[in-house]
Parts: sequence; C-alpha cells; structure tokens
Amino acid sequence: MENFIFQNPTKIIFGRGVHKEAGREVRKITGRVLFHYGGGSIKRTGLYGQVMESLKKENIRVFELAGVKPNPVLSLVQEGAGICRKNDIGLVLAVGGGSVIDSAKAIAVSAPYPGKSMWDFVEGVTRPLEALPVGVILTIPAAGSESSDVSVITNEDGMIKRGYHNELLRPRFAILNPELASTLPPFQVACGAVDIMSHVMERYFTRTENVDLTGRLCEATLKSVMANAPGAVKNPADYNPMAELMWAGTIAHNGILGTGRTGDWASHKIGHELSSAYGMTHGLSLAIIFPAWMRYVYRIRTGIFCQFAERVLDMDTGSAPEEKTIIEAIGKLKEFFGSLGLPVTLKDAGIGEERFAEMVEKTQLFGPIGSFKKLDTRDVMEIYRLALG
Amino acid sequence: MENFIFQNPTKIIFGRGVHKEAGREVRKITGRVLFHYGGGSIKRTGLYGQVMESLKKENIRVFELAGVKPNPVLSLVQEGAGICRKNDIGLVLAVGGGSVIDSAKAIAVSAPYPGKSMWDFVEGVTRPLEALPVGVILTIPAAGSESSDVSVITNEDGMIKRGYHNELLRPRFAILNPELASTLPPFQVACGAVDIMSHVMERYFTRTENVDLTGRLCEATLKSVMANAPGAVKNPADYNPMAELMWAGTIAHNGILGTGRTGDWASHKIGHELSSAYGMTHGLSLAIIFPAWMRYVYRIRTGIFCQFAERVLDMDTGSAPEEKTIIEAIGKLKEFFGSLGLPVTLKDAGIGEERFAEMVEKTQLFGPIGSFKKLDTRDVMEIYRLALG
Repeated sequence: MENFIFQNPTKIIFGRGVHKEAGREVRKITGRVLFHYGGGSIKRTGLYGQVMESLKKENIRVFELAGVKPNPVLSLVQEGAGICRKNDIGLVLAVGGGSVIDSAKAIAVSAPYPGKSMWDFVEGVTRPLEALPVGVILTIPAAGSESSDVSVITNEDGMIKRGYHNELLRPRFAILNPELASTLPPFQVACGAVDIMSHVMERYFTRTENVDLTGRLCEATLKSVMANAPGAVKNPADYNPMAELMWAGTIAHNGILGTGRTGDWASHKIGHELSSAYGMTHGLSLAIIFPAWMRYVYRIRTGIFCQFAERVLDMDTGSAPEEKTIIEAIGKLKEFFGSLGLPVTLKDAGIGEERFAEMVEKTQLFGPIGSFKKLDTRDVMEIYRLALG
Repeated sequence: MENFIFQNPTKIIFGRGVHKEAGREVRKITGRVLFHYGGGSIKRTGLYGQVMESLKKENIRVFELAGVKPNPVLSLVQEGAGICRKNDIGLVLAVGGGSVIDSAKAIAVSAPYPGKSMWDFVEGVTRPLEALPVGVILTIPAAGSESSDVSVITNEDGMIKRGYHNELLRPRFAILNPELASTLPPFQVACGAVDIMSHVMERYFTRTENVDLTGRLCEATLKSVMANAPGAVKNPADYNPMAELMWAGTIAHNGILGTGRTGDWASHKIGHELSSAYGMTHGLSLAIIFPAWMRYVYRIRTGIFCQFAERVLDMDTGSAPEEKTIIEAIGKLKEFFGSLGLPVTLKDAGIGEERFAEMVEKTQLFGPIGSFKKLDTRDVMEIYRLALG
C-alpha cells in the first residue's frame, strides 16, 4: 500500500424528495447564487421550477447560466466566471449531470481570477488559491463529479479535452435524489453505468501491491453496478436500482476506492478524444475503449485480471490457463456493456480509422499516458485499432 | 434504501512515517494544543518524543494530560476541559487508541461549556453548539474513532458507559501510521479486529431492504479483515496486514457503510456492561456477545444471515435448510474469533451469571435497545445466558 492523504468533505443529501432542500443548503452559505444548467430538460421535468421555488423561499437572489452541453467548453466557463465576478456570486449551483457539474466547478475556480483562464491551471502555468463553493443537484448517476476533485473541460481552441484536479473543486454539498433520474433515456443510464464502472476499474487495475481492502471495495462496487444497472436501464423510474446506481456513482469517484493505490486513467484520456472528435457520449467511449485497453495491457500483471474474472464476474478460474480466463473475462465485460444496449466496438458505433492519427497525437500532448502501462503514440494507436472490433 | 445525509470531513493522513507531520497539521489550526494520551506506552516506544519534537518544531505550546484508561471516564474529561478553558487551548491532540480519542472528543465538546458536564449532552438535557477541533495520531486499528462522530464515555457515578453522537465530534485530521501499531500485544490486535468487524456487522444486519451496494461494501470490509487479522495478530510488525486492518478500522466506522440503512448497536450496549462490570476489553466483549446476539435474533430475517454465510464466509449454502446454515455460520464466526486467541464465551473469560441482573438493568436505562430486534430486559438476559457458552 502507498502512503496517501484522503479527505472528502462534500455533504451528501440522498433520497426521495431531497432536492427541495436546495434553498436551505444554499442559504447556509450565501444569498447570491449562479444557477447553472444544461438545456430544457430540467424545465420539461419541472425540476427547474422546484429548485427555483426552493431558492426563492429562502430569499436567494438567483442569476442563471444555461447552455452546458455534453463535453462542456471553456468559453461557457469564462462567461460564467464573468457573471460571478460582476454579480458577487457566493455559490455556483449545478443542476444536472457530470457536464454541468464540471462546468460549474470550472466557473467556481475561474471566478476569483479576472483576466486568467482556468486553462492556465490545466497547463500548470499557475495554481488557484481559492474557488467559489459549488453546490450540486444531481440528475444522472454517472460521472461522480458531485463529490470528486476533478473537472473535465474542453478547450475549443484545438478541441482539447482535459481533466483538472484540485481539492478546491470538491462541491460543498451534493443533493442526490434518484427520482430525478427517472425520466432519463435508457441510453444515458447505460452510459452512466459504464462511466461508474470505469471510474472503479481505472483504480482497480493497478500495479500497486498489498491493497486488499480497497481492491475488495472496488469489486463490491462493480458487482453492485452490474447487479443494478440492467434494472435501471430497463426502467429508470424504478427507484431501487436507480438509487443503488446513483450512490455507486458517488462512491466510485469520491476518492476512497483509490486510496493507497496508483490508478491508471489512460482509458479515460483515450476515450476523451472520441468525444472531442465525434461528440461521443463519455460513457460510450469507455464501453468501447476500456475492453480494448484491457486486452492491450493485461500481460503486465495477469493476476489482477484473473482476480477480476473470479471475484467480479464470478468466473470459475480453476485450472484454465490465465490468458484464456482473461480473454474470456474481457469478452464477458463487453457482453455486459452490450446487454445495456451499447455498441462496444468503434465499427458498431459507425467510426473508422480516419482520425486515429490525429486522436493519438492529442493523447500525447502532455506526454505518455497511463501508469499501469505507460502508453506512447504506438500503444494508443494499437488500442484504437483493437477497439475497431 | 432510506434517505440519508452523509458527511465526513476528517482528513486522513496514512502511511509510513506520517506521524512526524503532526506539528504541521496542528499549526494550520492553532499554536496551543492539549496533548492527550494514556499511560507510558507511547513514552516506551519513543512516539511521545517524536510527536513532541514535531510540535516543538512548529513552535506549538503544548499542555499535557495523560492517564486515559480503557473505558475512559468522565472525571478525566472534566479535568481536560478545565485545562483547555484555563489555557485557551485551540486543539485537543489524541495520541493513542479509541479510548484516548473518545476522551479527547469528550474534552473538546466539554471545553466550551464551563459549569456543564458532557453527560448533559449524553442524557439529552441540552445540546452542544460548538467544540474544539480534535486531531488524532492513531496507535491501534480498532475503534474507528479517528473519523467517527461518536465518543463512548463511562460515568463513574453508577459506572454507566454510553456513546454520544454528534457531528461536532469528528476529528479534523487523523494520522494513521501502521508502524505505530507494531509493538501492540497480539491480544490487543485481536480485540481490535473484532471491534472493526462488529462495527461493520452492527450496520450489516439490518431490516432495511434494498441496500445492495452498502451490503456488498460491508461484506468486502469483513472479508478483508478476516483475511488480514490473523497475520496482524501473529506479527503486529508486519506492515501490510496491519495497514489493511488500520484502514479497515476507519472505513468500518466513518459512516459510509451505514448509509441508507438502519444499524442495530445492541451488541455494543450489551458488551459495554461487561466492560463496566469487569473492565473487559471492548473488542473481547463483542467477540463474546455478537455471536450470542446473532443466535438470539436471526429468525427475524434469515435472508441476511444466509447472505452473510455465503458472501462473507464463502459457505456453500446450496440446499441446506436456512437454520442449519445460519447456526453453522455463527459457529464459524466464533471459530474465527477463537483463532485470533480470544475466548468466545463468558465461561472461558472466567465470568458467571452473578451480575447478569444488574447488567441487564443497566442496558435498559434509556429504554429497550437495538433495532433489528428491540431488546427488553428478558431478551438481554437471554443473550447474556447464550453468551455463557
């Protein structure tokens, strides 16, 4: 086990009806809020009105910024930061999924820095000293951004998608009501489930030894997602599986599962380029890339992949050769993603090799990626090729 | 799943050598500290000197209060609170195990209330509005007090041992270095392992339905403790199993495993009376009482006990009658506790029925106990009898 520091102070408020407590939570922090959201879906479902009512009840002055799209962009972040500065905003309230939350975090960390862009932080030119508090009302179990320390933003100048980590980014509170996910399209729920599993697997497949407890906690979370995702995809209004999935989404990414071990995160970066190039939903990119990554790297440490087969997929690994077990396990994982209604190869997603060279190059902008196996240009190209199917 | 609120802001600093960072952590909060500990063991091991050096290096003014004994008492708490008030202490630094930490928390919550005793809080006469911050350097994996919201104190007036819960009690930081546990007697490590498992099991055996994820996380933690405790008991200086046990101790009691479910906690209360009456080590009382409690209550919800047999003890429950499986599982759990070198019956611990009546009565001071099954006088008597062996 490696030495580590872990702290996650986000207050989680979980359950039926809890979104109506938004106003009360905001009031403890400020009277001026930036209400940040995506498109019209929260207006259609009535959530917009309920949140507004909850804020008004506490006499909170509300400023609004809508328009977050999947793969949130730097230009909207800068617009939001400007609104915050101009109006002395005390908290950014994200109402939505991972993209809205990531955008809100980026706004929160940009607001105190007039004239600067948070891309300076991403590139390590300078470091933030403070950030506005962020509050969350989550509408989809997926990104885990509701209590994570990371924001993933796309810089339209070059269409570069990058994650930025900083403890300042952890939301002050996160309101999780599984009922709010009841109107999601099944495709979104499926992508969310894959995203959650990927957050666990990025941590699980490690070269760090002697991480028994966190390994088992990862396995437990993966098993729970695999047990509940099919029900949540089939009927997003079924409270129980959706509740399990939503809490798993937070647990997967609140940091605990990564304590004492080095995670990999190459699959995320390789998948990000599919989002940048084709606008592919994040979870879908992972359903396609993660199995390809596994296939490419498993020889580095077969033991952890056999353990995955045995403990997560309940495979009887008995006397079978390790390699056979692992290939079969990867197949089973793809089968599971497929059973959620997702394509699991680039071909099935209608994507060919045309832009591979450009995508590969972008993954290397900050040097080789990953830690389980450091991946250079040639490696990433191989993984895209394996993902073709 | 039940609605819940979860927040645990304790900063965990984990690994080899990290206790030397104590001074730096304290300095972020205050320049005046109450160094609170037990007997001479931290002086023998050199930890006392190292902590003192780390504090002095940051020019922190140190006041001392030693003398915490297992099952910490209210009188010492009051003495500590007095020292804090008189010397304008800014943080109580607990260096030790659960008893020292619980005592420190009680001091921290008492200090701002001159003329009052924290027993008023325990009895619900009044509620605290603030508390001093607490810092922890942990020397034994067991109580989980390093990031929990509870302090268990014994009031010598009547020898009543009670837990008091309040979010104000969560330590600001906790320094966990498994090396510090390397000199523990194996008996203490064994008792710690049972305490950790009991914290999980008190949450695991619930009547709340649809708690798949937290159920699996509980199982993962139990399995990890069962896999690592034997090694840690055999050789407390073996870093890896001790590290797993130490992190499990925190995970078991930081609140996550109880989210969305109602815990029981009757076994703790029944065990507390053995500590009050006989000075029995807390973990040992649980090794004796928990299996007796299981035996007495399992019929309420056999499914969860069968699940425990299957998923935690790897029993093949196949076609065996439920009752047979459960009795066998309880036997296996006792066997495991026994394998750590602990007596698992009152008789083996040299205790008879002489004081049962008095102990039973004390468990009912605040009414019936537990929630899986509400236990009254008659029930608790039955459990003590079952524990006789």
